[in-house]
Amino acid sequence: MAQSMSRSPLAPAAFPDLPVIKGVRFASAAAGVKYQGRTDVMLAQMNPGTTVAGVFTKSATRSAPVRDCQDKLGAESQAGAAILVNSGNSNAFTGHFGQTSVAEITEAVAMATGLPASRVFTASTGVIGEPLPHDRITAKINGLVDDLNEVRIKDAAEAIMTTDTFAKGASAQIQVDGQAVSIAGVAKGSGMIAPDMATMLVYIFTDAKLADSDLQSLLAKLCNRSFNCITVDSDTSTSDSLMLCATGASGVDVKGNSDFAAALESVMLDLAHQVVRDGEGATKFVEIQVTGAVSDAEAKVHGLAIANSPLVKTAIAGEDPNWGRVVMAIGKSGAIADRDLLSISFGDVLVAEKGWVSPDYREEDAAELMKRDEIILKVDLGLGGGKTTVWTCDLTHGYIEINADYRS
Amino acid sequence: MAQSMSRSPLAPAAFPDLPVIKGVRFASAAAGVKYQGRTDVMLAQMNPGTTVAGVFTKSATRSAPVRDCQDKLGAESQAGAAILVNSGNSNAFTGHFGQTSVAEITEAVAMATGLPASRVFTASTGVIGEPLPHDRITAKINGLVDDLNEVRIKDAAEAIMTTDTFAKGASAQIQVDGQAVSIAGVAKGSGMIAPDMATMLVYIFTDAKLADSDLQSLLAKLCNRSFNCITVDSDTSTSDSLMLCATGASGVDVKGNSDFAAALESVMLDLAHQVVRDGEGATKFVEIQVTGAVSDAEAKVHGLAIANSPLVKTAIAGEDPNWGRVVMAIGKSGAIADRDLLSISFGDVLVAEKGWVSPDYREEDAAELMKRDEIILKVDLGLGGGKTTVWTCDLTHGYIEINADYRS
Repeated sequence: MAQSMSRSPLAPAAFPDLPVIKGVRFASAAAGVKYQGRTDVMLAQMNPGTTVAGVFTKSATRSAPVRDCQDKLGAESQAGAAILVNSGNSNAFTGHFGQTSVAEITEAVAMATGLPASRVFTASTGVIGEPLPHDRITAKINGLVDDLNEVRIKDAAEAIMTTDTFAKGASAQIQVDGQAVSIAGVAKGSGMIAPDMATMLVYIFTDAKLADSDLQSLLAKLCNRSFNCITVDSDTSTSDSLMLCATGASGVDVKGNSDFAAALESVMLDLAHQVVRDGEGATKFVEIQVTGAVSDAEAKVHGLAIANSPLVKTAIAGEDPNWGRVVMAIGKSGAIADRDLLSISFGDVLVAEKGWVSPDYREEDAAELMKRDEIILKVDLGLGGGKTTVWTCDLTHGYIEINADYRS
Repeated sequence: MAQSMSRSPLAPAAFPDLPVIKGVRFASAAAGVKYQGRTDVMLAQMNPGTTVAGVFTKSATRSAPVRDCQDKLGAESQAGAAILVNSGNSNAFTGHFGQTSVAEITEAVAMATGLPASRVFTASTGVIGEPLPHDRITAKINGLVDDLNEVRIKDAAEAIMTTDTFAKGASAQIQVDGQAVSIAGVAKGSGMIAPDMATMLVYIFTDAKLADSDLQSLLAKLCNRSFNCITVDSDTSTSDSLMLCATGASGVDVKGNSDFAAALESVMLDLAHQVVRDGEGATKFVEIQVTGAVSDAEAKVHGLAIANSPLVKTAIAGEDPNWGRVVMAIGKSGAIADRDLLSISFGDVLVAEKGWVSPDYREEDAAELMKRDEIILKVDLGLGGGKTTVWTCDLTHGYIEINADYRS
């Protein structure tokens, strides 16, 4: 990781202009955890009254910082909060030493900010199984606190990158009863991406007002429709963390507000799609729409089986409309399917229906469509009303280069 | 498929000398189903009194020949039996046309051999979703029957190859109460390999005597320890078929005979390993030994999670002893693991123990070992007595080349 890979061909043109979120300030620093010549630590500090929600990896070997965050969440507090994240080392599978590192860092942040340590959340991302040189981080904390500024969210996005080829940010602004509410978030992630209850590192901030428990249930619900619907390589990180902080600085209570939920979902989907667009070696962004399943859950099993199939992903890389491999992936998924009710389209080209190639199908139509860098694959199971949409990328030589040739 | 890929570097030196199995004869022909200039149909005919067992893919989109075999198995018959297999076209996702092709072929074989059609089993392997030109096959059947010969098993192994870079055969001969019993089998398979209840195409023959139901239960049991413990790419074929035919020609009843079961298992493991050794793009043969799990089933979940992880497989391709990725795969598998009880070795080099890198670990020792073309990875979960061994190969540029650059 941290090779200078060239920017993904699927990257957005530029980092977006993110709105200031009242009540939260950011700073970043170059601590030299592993990388040289770049920032690798970010600090975000939230005002008193901020509520905090989080969703984390379900990995049985999850990292020490993840376990610490899980222990701390849910305790309602008016004290404010801070998030410190380092890149370059994931502090995962680091034994008891890992907990020591977390304690050293959270206590140093607590000391410098005046927050209780129970309100300091951390995350680490990078190599697994090497001790985190936490002294390099704690040495930077006073400087980070001095530098905290409302406008530095882009610096935060850059400091948390590992194999990412671009910094990821997204935002939304809505009016609630005539008052402005803003949401802004940052994310990192490009490999080891098959989130399960959470993904990579994602931090979203809003000046809306929402109680801890409402914030948590909203985040969990929307996570299932965004970050839990993407996959790059079927591998799940030991560090996946998604956190949402509501400072309440707008004074607008958004409990039960569907406009706020929709705006938050749009930010989460935007960030999730950016992670896929930065998938290691990706050259195609693929949306898989599954309909007609027995249930939404079964639709997702089919969708992820297709999205994770190496043979489907290599066919897409080769611009081959190989729907036979889609049939294979549906067949192996374990979810219910009836060969004779299945229909499959690439974009608007119907390729197969009723257990058989469509009579009107002309391979040149689908082949033309496969040359695009955004591919939509539609599967209708013809069984019921269950549906889902999942997103993935293709599997290319670039993925092998990144992962076979470097220690990450 | 059927590109002239060079022979796998992990291939055995040569096709083995297989013993004649009394009571079964083979023939092959070039029917031009898809490939030119090579054989693509094999016929095996077994004498009256032969018992037949089979295990097949659980894919919901399995092929017409698989469904036909499943319908026919279990009917005890003294009539003898035949197996006809073609390569080049899998007759999968071919709608009602697929059933017609199977009926045409089985009836033609029945006519030419004098067997009832209910004792003619077929399989097809190759491209999915294109109609099988069955007339090309039926046109060859009289010639195949005329050519049947006890010694032509190697010809059969060659005729069923698709992306395989070498023909696969294995055998065993044992003495039971002073009488000789022989087992010989052939297999094909190199991609779309994550068997579930069966794998690729595998045909094993023995002159032992065993009732249909005993043969079936023995085959299913041993399949779980051999073909169901290998994976190349986590993708499961729509055509996977494993059949075992016992001609009884030796006159030796092997009911309950553990020597026979062990010999059969050795043949099945040998063929399963050859499939992995011919894994698309493979340069390393990897054995993953999992011990200390809560149960054998949980051990297998961990083993296959490691074996299917793209990040583990690319690390092995890169000769990187990246045990952090092994920890990741264990964590995501869904089976029980305790980070602090886990130990991981590459070959005899202990790399991690007690949730932490081993104090004696020197990366150069493991790195040296990773240069070999056969790698043993050992994981002990420290939880109980559950164990398993699974086999896989690495994930290389060769896999991408084969699957992104050609229609298969």
